[in-house]
Amino acid sequence: MKATFPGQVSSTKSIRLDLRSWTEVENYLQHCKCIILPIGSTEQHGPTGAIGTDALTAQAIALEVGRRTCVLVTPTQSFGMAEHHLGFPGTMSLQPSTLSAVLHDLLLSLARHGFERIFLINGHGGNIATAKAAFAQAYGTALSRQLPVASKIRFKLANWFMSESVFREAKALYGDSEGQHATPSEIALTLHLEPSLLSKQRPLPNPAPSGPIYGPEDFRKRYPDGRMGSDPYLALPKHGENLLDKAASALSKDLSNFIEAL
Amino acid sequence: MKATFPGQVSSTKSIRLDLRSWTEVENYLQHCKCIILPIGSTEQHGPTGAIGTDALTAQAIALEVGRRTCVLVTPTQSFGMAEHHLGFPGTMSLQPSTLSAVLHDLLLSLARHGFERIFLINGHGGNIATAKAAFAQAYGTALSRQLPVASKIRFKLANWFMSESVFREAKALYGDSEGQHATPSEIALTLHLEPSLLSKQRPLPNPAPSGPIYGPEDFRKRYPDGRMGSDPYLALPKHGENLLDKAASALSKDLSNFIEAL
Amino acid sequence: MKATFPGQVSSTKSIRLDLRSWTEVENYLQHCKCIILPIGSTEQHGPTGAIGTDALTAQAIALEVGRRTCVLVTPTQSFGMAEHHLGFPGTMSLQPSTLSAVLHDLLLSLARHGFERIFLINGHGGNIATAKAAFAQAYGTALSRQLPVASKIRFKLANWFMSESVFREAKALYGDSEGQHATPSEIALTLHLEPSLLSKQRPLPNPAPSGPIYGPEDFRKRYPDGRMGSDPYLALPKHGENLLDKAASALSKDLSNFIEAL
Amino acid sequence: MKATFPGQVSSTKSIRLDLRSWTEVENYLQHCKCIILPIGSTEQHGPTGAIGTDALTAQAIALEVGRRTCVLVTPTQSFGMAEHHLGFPGTMSLQPSTLSAVLHDLLLSLARHGFERIFLINGHGGNIATAKAAFAQAYGTALSRQLPVASKIRFKLANWFMSESVFREAKALYGDSEGQHATPSEIALTLHLEPSLLSKQRPLPNPAPSGPIYGPEDFRKRYPDGRMGSDPYLALPKHGENLLDKAASALSKDLSNFIEAL
Amino acid sequence: MKATFPGQVSSTKSIRLDLRSWTEVENYLQHCKCIILPIGSTEQHGPTGAIGTDALTAQAIALEVGRRTCVLVTPTQSFGMAEHHLGFPGTMSLQPSTLSAVLHDLLLSLARHGFERIFLINGHGGNIATAKAAFAQAYGTALSRQLPVASKIRFKLANWFMSESVFREAKALYGDSEGQHATPSEIALTLHLEPSLLSKQRPLPNPAPSGPIYGPEDFRKRYPDGRMGSDPYLALPKHGENLLDKAASALSKDLSNFIEAL
Amino acid sequence: MKATFPGQVSSTKSIRLDLRSWTEVENYLQHCKCIILPIGSTEQHGPTGAIGTDALTAQAIALEVGRRTCVLVTPTQSFGMAEHHLGFPGTMSLQPSTLSAVLHDLLLSLARHGFERIFLINGHGGNIATAKAAFAQAYGTALSRQLPVASKIRFKLANWFMSESVFREAKALYGDSEGQHATPSEIALTLHLEPSLLSKQRPLPNPAPSGPIYGPEDFRKRYPDGRMGSDPYLALPKHGENLLDKAASALSKDLSNFIEAL
Repeated sequence: MKATFPGQVSSTKSIRLDLRSWTEVENYLQHCKCIILPIGSTEQHGPTGAIGTDALTAQAIALEVGRRTCVLVTPTQSFGMAEHHLGFPGTMSLQPSTLSAVLHDLLLSLARHGFERIFLINGHGGNIATAKAAFAQAYGTALSRQLPVASKIRFKLANWFMSESVFREAKALYGDSEGQHATPSEIALTLHLEPSLLSKQRPLPNPAPSGPIYGPEDFRKRYPDGRMGSDPYLALPKHGENLLDKAASALSKDLSNFIEAL
Repeated sequence: MKATFPGQVSSTKSIRLDLRSWTEVENYLQHCKCIILPIGSTEQHGPTGAIGTDALTAQAIALEVGRRTCVLVTPTQSFGMAEHHLGFPGTMSLQPSTLSAVLHDLLLSLARHGFERIFLINGHGGNIATAKAAFAQAYGTALSRQLPVASKIRFKLANWFMSESVFREAKALYGDSEGQHATPSEIALTLHLEPSLLSKQRPLPNPAPSGPIYGPEDFRKRYPDGRMGSDPYLALPKHGENLLDKAASALSKDLSNFIEAL
Repeated sequence: MKATFPGQVSSTKSIRLDLRSWTEVENYLQHCKCIILPIGSTEQHGPTGAIGTDALTAQAIALEVGRRTCVLVTPTQSFGMAEHHLGFPGTMSLQPSTLSAVLHDLLLSLARHGFERIFLINGHGGNIATAKAAFAQAYGTALSRQLPVASKIRFKLANWFMSESVFREAKALYGDSEGQHATPSEIALTLHLEPSLLSKQRPLPNPAPSGPIYGPEDFRKRYPDGRMGSDPYLALPKHGENLLDKAASALSKDLSNFIEAL
Repeated sequence: MKATFPGQVSSTKSIRLDLRSWTEVENYLQHCKCIILPIGSTEQHGPTGAIGTDALTAQAIALEVGRRTCVLVTPTQSFGMAEHHLGFPGTMSLQPSTLSAVLHDLLLSLARHGFERIFLINGHGGNIATAKAAFAQAYGTALSRQLPVASKIRFKLANWFMSESVFREAKALYGDSEGQHATPSEIALTLHLEPSLLSKQRPLPNPAPSGPIYGPEDFRKRYPDGRMGSDPYLALPKHGENLLDKAASALSKDLSNFIEAL
Repeated sequence: MKATFPGQVSSTKSIRLDLRSWTEVENYLQHCKCIILPIGSTEQHGPTGAIGTDALTAQAIALEVGRRTCVLVTPTQSFGMAEHHLGFPGTMSLQPSTLSAVLHDLLLSLARHGFERIFLINGHGGNIATAKAAFAQAYGTALSRQLPVASKIRFKLANWFMSESVFREAKALYGDSEGQHATPSEIALTLHLEPSLLSKQRPLPNPAPSGPIYGPEDFRKRYPDGRMGSDPYLALPKHGENLLDKAASALSKDLSNFIEAL
Repeated sequence: MKATFPGQVSSTKSIRLDLRSWTEVENYLQHCKCIILPIGSTEQHGPTGAIGTDALTAQAIALEVGRRTCVLVTPTQSFGMAEHHLGFPGTMSLQPSTLSAVLHDLLLSLARHGFERIFLINGHGGNIATAKAAFAQAYGTALSRQLPVASKIRFKLANWFMSESVFREAKALYGDSEGQHATPSEIALTLHLEPSLLSKQRPLPNPAPSGPIYGPEDFRKRYPDGRMGSDPYLALPKHGENLLDKAASALSKDLSNFIEAL
């Protein structure tokens, strides 16, 4: 893929697919075959965290990566695989088979237009397995349908919270209180993005320790307030700003490598 | 359902599910069993319209309805059934079977938490059939799973662009140039919401006349620039502001009736 | 499509696909690429109406339209989407996903043989959403399978009870007692087709008023004898004869337009 | 199951489910929990046989069995699994997965109403495998949904053309010319039911010999005119009348055993 | 298909696909386009029979057939459709829809590599219907995907226990005590293959008589210890050795015919 | 779960589910609610590796873990998700949706019998995502079906090749030549299990370096002989013996923790 990798733009607006017209996308495809697809989840994030945390963070990071790299960003798939959180009111979950079908259809839509590299920025650990399964399914369909791009299309999953620099920063800031769910790092990011969330912050009792994830009833019993070993009260908006920058840097680099790779 | 129907709040933030915590939702369910779910689409809207038109409008109207009625609004399902638009770059479509599974899972998630009235605010005609099919499927599953709310849950689809007052206003403003797709009324709403879109507005040649919708290749041949009989150049931001208000009024009333009905 | 649109034949037998051989169909395809597919439902129609009403009427009208236009008529898909009637004994329903698969497979079978225009004559409101969703799915498959007719095939749904002339006649005959389900107009049609049904006719108490449709348990509670605002006792066989003629006229014209359209 | 096994009625009309009202079905269930479901196929039957042969025969036999036993007969599922006949124009086939879903949904609809014994009268060999698979699926669902009849419901498949007396009669009448598809015995039955089909009868060249069935393209190559070793020109209407009687006798006995079995 | 039908090899190892490398398979396909796929089941076989009986026997016979004919044998699909045995601990069943998908995917994998004749050796009656349904589905997909072998690929199901010589031998050895499930013939085969199973053999009370199969709860009530009319205590290892030979002879001949047929 | 965790048995035979009768499983469930399910794959492993590598290794390790812990081991699901290897002859792959359905059905079968802890021993990286997705699906179904164990059942995936001691040993033995696919460590294990495979071992040219995995055509182009950075010629049977012991030790400990955890 010959990719004229561009510099960066001043605003996220210019790289939002939902603000483009189809003729602009047609032009875009003349010089770039890559696109970013953010996926999140709508699920409980502890007694003080926002239910939309995983979608808000994935979207913000995707837009910042898009801004820095001039790569288009699609709308966010805000609902993900959150079956294990269904014991908590407000959680909205797609079954794995449903999320897989969603990603399959979105990837195939883009493949049909000639996109060759699709970069998913993911905000939720529970999406990872299903997304990878969906990739295998989508490669197969692209071949079955004999799409022109079938033999060269590539999908890549980028989980912002697993970037090394983000991981290290979270460790440095919060130590073991980072935990595994409703972590201060993701909460910090939402506080930066949405200051109104600050009003929810309050000291919390010690969380249930991190552990395994089984079914939704087990989850609620094991992690009664939804947190897994985390202390989100440690989160500050400025941490979030910093983490957003670190995540965007790391993923921009990953994306750049993804585009330039032969 | 005993519903303490509230007044209105000053900001859409307080009724966004994604900005709530699960404990706040638990409290909410004590006095209100209703929730709003916006669904849109990500598809071509003519050479000058935004690809995200249907999601942007559904979301804005849903939030305004939520604000006026104090009813929670979930995140927007931004991808809908847009198979017939797949001939135009940038369109991202879920197959009907996929969208049906998405809505099914989201409705069942909410039913599980005890929501009894779910009000979908829809921005895209192509979603209507699938949404109705999904409702029938979801009622059946609620019974099969023997959910406590199974015998009383109700789903309602509200298509903002089909509200009588909106329809009449669009006719008054644009006459026959309203057309059927990429209409000036929906474009106007996006111009109001997102002023940067104004830069795309320009006079367009006469559109292909409105007509039937078959498969994606036929659609592109029949409506070469994506418009169906519409002149989106007529759209002005202030029209959009007005239409948003009219749609929100009409749907708030529908929602109120939906909640209060025995 | 060059269509030699024929006149009419004296008997419905000559246009019934089930009475043709495959070689006759092969010949037929030389001069006409259109076919009619009737779909009905098998569901309660009030305490005095026949469970097969929607299939009997769709089939009779389809055959009459076929006779007048010389267009082949396939057998009737007698089972439709009637989930909301499952609270009444005798109702046999396909889930939306199942009916969608049925229509998908039937449309694709016909497309494979070279039929280019498939005209569904439908006798049941509950089938409409699913049929439309199935169309979108089938267009996609036709393209995925690279069928020769993929880019030109067209599906059209014709609901006989929504034809303007039928609607007006029903209003004139029955006024508000037409109601929404187990209507005197459809019952009249069955009395004309099947005189033995007359023995069931008897005065009924006032029906539950027309209203919304949610799940099957809600439906039974809301409409205890299955009727929605209708008084089927008003139905007379001669009304049915007249309605059949009106419906056949209207749909024959629709079909003719469908065939001749570019 | 205590079954008051009735005598017989004078007309098939009284046992047609589609001519009953739901209240009549409710009464019927007081004394009989059994129902007959005819399934056929819409597929090529050689150059002179009717495409609807398998549905016409299954329906006629089902109605006659119903008449003799006073057991209700549902409408006919006219479309079956005929994938291997898709190389011949006019064939309309449901994929096995689709037919399985259809039967599953119909069986579950009946189970929900309290039917405990469902007797499928089948006119097409190609449906057998799928019907049996659907039974296993439906038993599972009945248990999953915890239907009251789940532990006692029974499904039985009766293939009229495999009844011993029918088989012997066909052998006696046609010897090896009975063949395997488009057989004179089934054609004879259609000639009896629908005299207009007689006009298609004509001497045919020797058929391709009976053999295996693989995919649709192989089938057409192997059996160029659709017949498998059969000479349908031998069929006479009076044979059909006789075969109908023999089939109805055999299946009435099977049905009676099915009902009376503990 | 030009098939150089080979003689036999001294060990089953040389024809086990799982012990071959892909380059060896590539070579094999130069001279033989046929492959054997064994399918079994993991289900109760009475109080003394091994749960793996159907997979152990299918695998052993498949390997012996492969050894004698030099045709490759794939690994065994050990889990089959055993829904009706789910009332007995240890049974592991795939729903018909799942087993159908498994066979579909395996057949398509092999078709993609150029295999043209796939011979399933089956050890379980409950798999038959689903396997046949899967064949029809797979032929369709091969055509939809336009695989090079689509028009010539052939699938064949061989049920070893239904071979005439096996059937006659079982009758001669055990008479009516062969029964229908947990039969002495299949148990004998497992005793030959796995002598440790002898320790389970013990006299058993008279079995429930053979009869119909409905749902899992009915099955357990009807056949309380899992046997259907069989006396597996009659089984001896030497019977098994003999039956294995008879089955392998019969199926080798079937396979040879399958390969050589035009 | 009260688990009487046993010592070890002398032979793998006594813990093979397929060699047990249902009554023995019933007894087993009195004192242990845990079971091991091995899953593998049937796919190319380079020009000299066995196609069955992933199933052979998973099965051997599962049996050894079962032997040491006295926990039952089910038959192996030999076919896994290997879509990306489909470019190489001999690979047999289940689509992710199919493998997910298989695991779902197997887990639910076991759950129905009262198993509460199911430990999957996996031999193939490509199965991981799908297995995890299947777990979420299965927890949901267990609840939907209201199985008695629904709220306490636990599934765990153990990938033997990712055990720390195995990983370290492989690194020590092979350094960078361990690679990512067709690794000397897994090949060594097969050489130990199946000495006949030694005859395939030969020096190979430098492999393509390890890298990403996209679709099957890309995979074949990127890794022309199927290896990803590995030198399987380094593998010796004694390494395999050692690795088997290390894997069995590690997983026995994991299993023991899994059983004993509250």
